[in-house]
Amino acid sequence: MASIDGSSGSDGALREAAATFALTDWPMNAWYAAAYDVELKHALLPRTIAGRSLVLYRKGDGTPIALENACWHRLLPLSEGHLEDDAVVCGYHGLMYNGEGRCVFMPSQQTINPAARVRSYPIAERHRFVWVWPGDPALADPDTIPDLHWNDDPEWAGDGGLIDVKCNYKLVVDNLMDLTHETFVHGSSIGHRSVAEVPFEVTHGPDGVTVTRWMLDVDPPPFWAMQLEWRHGRRFDRVDRWQIIHFEAPSTIAIDVGVAPAGTGAPQGDRSQGVNGFVLNTMTPQSPGACHYFWAFARNYNLDDQRITTLLRDGVAGVFGEDEEVLNAQQRSIDSNPDKQFYNLNIDGGAMWARRLIDSMIAAEGDDARYARASEQARAAALSEPATTRVEATEADRARLGI
Amino acid sequence: MASIDGSSGSDGALREAAATFALTDWPMNAWYAAAYDVELKHALLPRTIAGRSLVLYRKGDGTPIALENACWHRLLPLSEGHLEDDAVVCGYHGLMYNGEGRCVFMPSQQTINPAARVRSYPIAERHRFVWVWPGDPALADPDTIPDLHWNDDPEWAGDGGLIDVKCNYKLVVDNLMDLTHETFVHGSSIGHRSVAEVPFEVTHGPDGVTVTRWMLDVDPPPFWAMQLEWRHGRRFDRVDRWQIIHFEAPSTIAIDVGVAPAGTGAPQGDRSQGVNGFVLNTMTPQSPGACHYFWAFARNYNLDDQRITTLLRDGVAGVFGEDEEVLNAQQRSIDSNPDKQFYNLNIDGGAMWARRLIDSMIAAEGDDARYARASEQARAAALSEPATTRVEATEADRARLGI
Amino acid sequence: MASIDGSSGSDGALREAAATFALTDWPMNAWYAAAYDVELKHALLPRTIAGRSLVLYRKGDGTPIALENACWHRLLPLSEGHLEDDAVVCGYHGLMYNGEGRCVFMPSQQTINPAARVRSYPIAERHRFVWVWPGDPALADPDTIPDLHWNDDPEWAGDGGLIDVKCNYKLVVDNLMDLTHETFVHGSSIGHRSVAEVPFEVTHGPDGVTVTRWMLDVDPPPFWAMQLEWRHGRRFDRVDRWQIIHFEAPSTIAIDVGVAPAGTGAPQGDRSQGVNGFVLNTMTPQSPGACHYFWAFARNYNLDDQRITTLLRDGVAGVFGEDEEVLNAQQRSIDSNPDKQFYNLNIDGGAMWARRLIDSMIAAEGDDARYARASEQARAAALSEPATTRVEATEADRARLGI
Repeated sequence: MASIDGSSGSDGALREAAATFALTDWPMNAWYAAAYDVELKHALLPRTIAGRSLVLYRKGDGTPIALENACWHRLLPLSEGHLEDDAVVCGYHGLMYNGEGRCVFMPSQQTINPAARVRSYPIAERHRFVWVWPGDPALADPDTIPDLHWNDDPEWAGDGGLIDVKCNYKLVVDNLMDLTHETFVHGSSIGHRSVAEVPFEVTHGPDGVTVTRWMLDVDPPPFWAMQLEWRHGRRFDRVDRWQIIHFEAPSTIAIDVGVAPAGTGAPQGDRSQGVNGFVLNTMTPQSPGACHYFWAFARNYNLDDQRITTLLRDGVAGVFGEDEEVLNAQQRSIDSNPDKQFYNLNIDGGAMWARRLIDSMIAAEGDDARYARASEQARAAALSEPATTRVEATEADRARLGI
Repeated sequence: MASIDGSSGSDGALREAAATFALTDWPMNAWYAAAYDVELKHALLPRTIAGRSLVLYRKGDGTPIALENACWHRLLPLSEGHLEDDAVVCGYHGLMYNGEGRCVFMPSQQTINPAARVRSYPIAERHRFVWVWPGDPALADPDTIPDLHWNDDPEWAGDGGLIDVKCNYKLVVDNLMDLTHETFVHGSSIGHRSVAEVPFEVTHGPDGVTVTRWMLDVDPPPFWAMQLEWRHGRRFDRVDRWQIIHFEAPSTIAIDVGVAPAGTGAPQGDRSQGVNGFVLNTMTPQSPGACHYFWAFARNYNLDDQRITTLLRDGVAGVFGEDEEVLNAQQRSIDSNPDKQFYNLNIDGGAMWARRLIDSMIAAEGDDARYARASEQARAAALSEPATTRVEATEADRARLGI
Repeated sequence: MASIDGSSGSDGALREAAATFALTDWPMNAWYAAAYDVELKHALLPRTIAGRSLVLYRKGDGTPIALENACWHRLLPLSEGHLEDDAVVCGYHGLMYNGEGRCVFMPSQQTINPAARVRSYPIAERHRFVWVWPGDPALADPDTIPDLHWNDDPEWAGDGGLIDVKCNYKLVVDNLMDLTHETFVHGSSIGHRSVAEVPFEVTHGPDGVTVTRWMLDVDPPPFWAMQLEWRHGRRFDRVDRWQIIHFEAPSTIAIDVGVAPAGTGAPQGDRSQGVNGFVLNTMTPQSPGACHYFWAFARNYNLDDQRITTLLRDGVAGVFGEDEEVLNAQQRSIDSNPDKQFYNLNIDGGAMWARRLIDSMIAAEGDDARYARASEQARAAALSEPATTRVEATEADRARLGI
């Protein structure tokens, strides 16, 4: 793995043009979450996915449909019309489209031009999300939908939400791939100086990136102390805590998080005394400077206690609200500093490999010169054997955090 | 007449670049309504007409004046100043302009530079509107002001209003030249499935376009049933209804509408038992994506009943509010789909000829290549004898509307 | 001095492209007021100065600091973080910067890249303002900070404020260099027809421009009648009034204003019976279309009467609120009339020489062709001996103002 130590100014990997965060910089051949399952009804829902304006709805039998959101005739957004049975009726002149996007009625025309259609998009429902494939339909395979199964697995319980963030989707990837920021952004909830203190390992391979951090025998932060007490009915002073971040390109991140009473064997694989959650995240680019950020939090204990579900969902929503503020401010700064670059630190190892996998996907779709160099690195990464890098806290960290 | 059947994909007339709806695409040598008569007082009124920022006012004797709205000296909008007698005083340094736009006072100058002036525009008051000519003043002939005489004819009574629509003015022309949309946009008021059902005829000539639709022996829609009852004191089950749309380039449309008890001779010319109205419309481009839409509704019965005037004005205002929503959404969609085209259906025959007459006016003013091809068609249309095309409802229409 | 009479249409000096008011048109090598002294505390204050986004704060010992407002790592505005002692902590990943902008902590890095820094700006506190030098630090000499000493001179008392105006800073210079506008913009407070009536003299030299206007034996306007009564306990019917405007490039203007009972010798130098104030103004370009406008009003009588301080500050704030409205409208008009020019009148003599000194500073910093011609004139002006031009009111002025 190339050094990404911030001390090495001559390293090509060190700098990234922040300006790329203001470009149309996502793969089209990918499944993107377009809606939470409960959002989609027998009604027209407009939504922008990967730069495309779509109208979504469910047919009477529940099948989800995604169509281009502009009438073939005069471009009125179809979402301004209404459904009649399973067809969309344009709200202007009554042209009707079936679920495949084919026009099935035009006023006063003896025949219907076979070219009269709006584009329909591959769509599939999985893990409580409705996914859309904005790219080449021939390549759309629902088996490649990112794994967020914890969101509807009977062994897990939870809930989530949708945030429309005014930032490039890759800034959210950055944010989630390095949890060092918890100490500074989320000090009052999940943040804890031990997050910045302990080492973590970055493992990358062709299929994804994993960042693993174990904090052994530490004070539990409030968010986790509370959950351990819910489960066991009493408080614990010391816990073993884990954060294992799984990235799946281009923009899905499942984070395995939890604590167990210290010394009960969690690091060795026995989590039976602990509480475990998955923070599920998938980001859908809307435009270069905006994304839909779908998230959920699932737990594996007290599954039927709806009060816990609500408390955890509201707690995580509060934490993500803090991130949203940072992400919005970061994007504004990028927009007003088009010449400035990003620099990578050791803590950005996970994000850097995630970025390479994303760039590899984009490079595979075309000959965009911006991605040519990134692509070489990315292909090398994708072909290489999984490898692991360890990032350690330093004396400076310990002094800084008083630990 | 070229086929505009949507089934003929190879027809050049079929497609129009929606992008032209985002351009400066109006003739300058034309009279445009700038204000309702009652809006204009002995006070400064800023208004944007055909891309020009103007200040309007009436002199003490009522004469309307239109001047460029930026002081010669430092560009402060003159509308920020005030009137002294019939002169505009700039609100910054007190420069004064007379009604011809000539500077008649400058502070501390022995002489006034004869070049010190703001442009004045030909202006005339007619049919309860104040009209401005933004183009070559030498060509401005008040006799060519579009005919909306019903708006102040003693045989007619009515009232109207002004809507600032966030769309290109030609989208309103489109809207008014085909009333098929009534069925879908105005279902609860004037809309009626018979509008989409019966055939209509499009007649075009060098001076305008007329679209004629007669609906014989039909149920009266609520808007008309009400009026017939006002006039006769009783309800009628069946009526003969007409819609005769007169387009006068570039953007004035007078629609002769009404109903008479079925079989009383209205189609043959005897409207004596009916109620007749004129929907008067004239659109003034403000910018490529915005226009002032002046409208009125005049009737020829119960002229002194002010209650009817108010009810009809409010009713039509409600109908046009529905159009406004559609038009705003359509323009937003055009703006976010710069590569998409408009397609014409048979129902767009009137709008298509109207567009050709507009393009012909623009082409006559310059060598804009965008209008070169349109201009050939338009000139051909303008030179040709009036011709008529008939558009019929189809089996599909009848099935669709359950008729 | 070249004629600037508006009657001379062929004079090159007559016209100025208004478009230059929409450009990045300020010298970088200059001191600009960044904050009022009381605004700056031991806390992070974001502010845009000369197109640069800065974060300002005071160290524990009161020393002011100005840093670039974007973290070296991921560009989050540092103003979103917090202070720890005298260091700025980034609110995202905790990078810390000292007052020189050097990064002194990075999480998990053994060494800190010496290139890891944000730019720090020369900063100094003087005359109750905190000044920043956005240009070449080697040239920053606090001795060249513009003279606004009345703002903290024990012989003077006063207070002021900050207005964020949505206009180019040079429009405010224009506004302040010619007080003829008082008659039209501030008629109800300080405006008086005698301001437009009496002659004034413009003196220009390499170091600045002075505009002098004496109004002898005139009615005192309300603002000044009130002050004379505060000082003497009685009203005076006739006063000698003065306005002496001192411009210091690029954007500081101190205006010596006052009245004395008529005939008590003020024009000859004995102001002992009068009341004297200084209107202090310094404008900081924020962007081409916006500036920070810092102002104060200081007086030399009844120094301990805080009630007078408050009344005068509120009175001047009201007057400047009227200017703000005009300036905002003027900038909007410039933006929507990119092809229109400014024309100079005799009354613009002071503003014209001020503009030449500004242009000379910009020209000295680079080879911007836009300023090449201006620069020749400006250098000629800067090298020439001070010279004076007299601008007189005319018969037309007298007739216009009824005097």
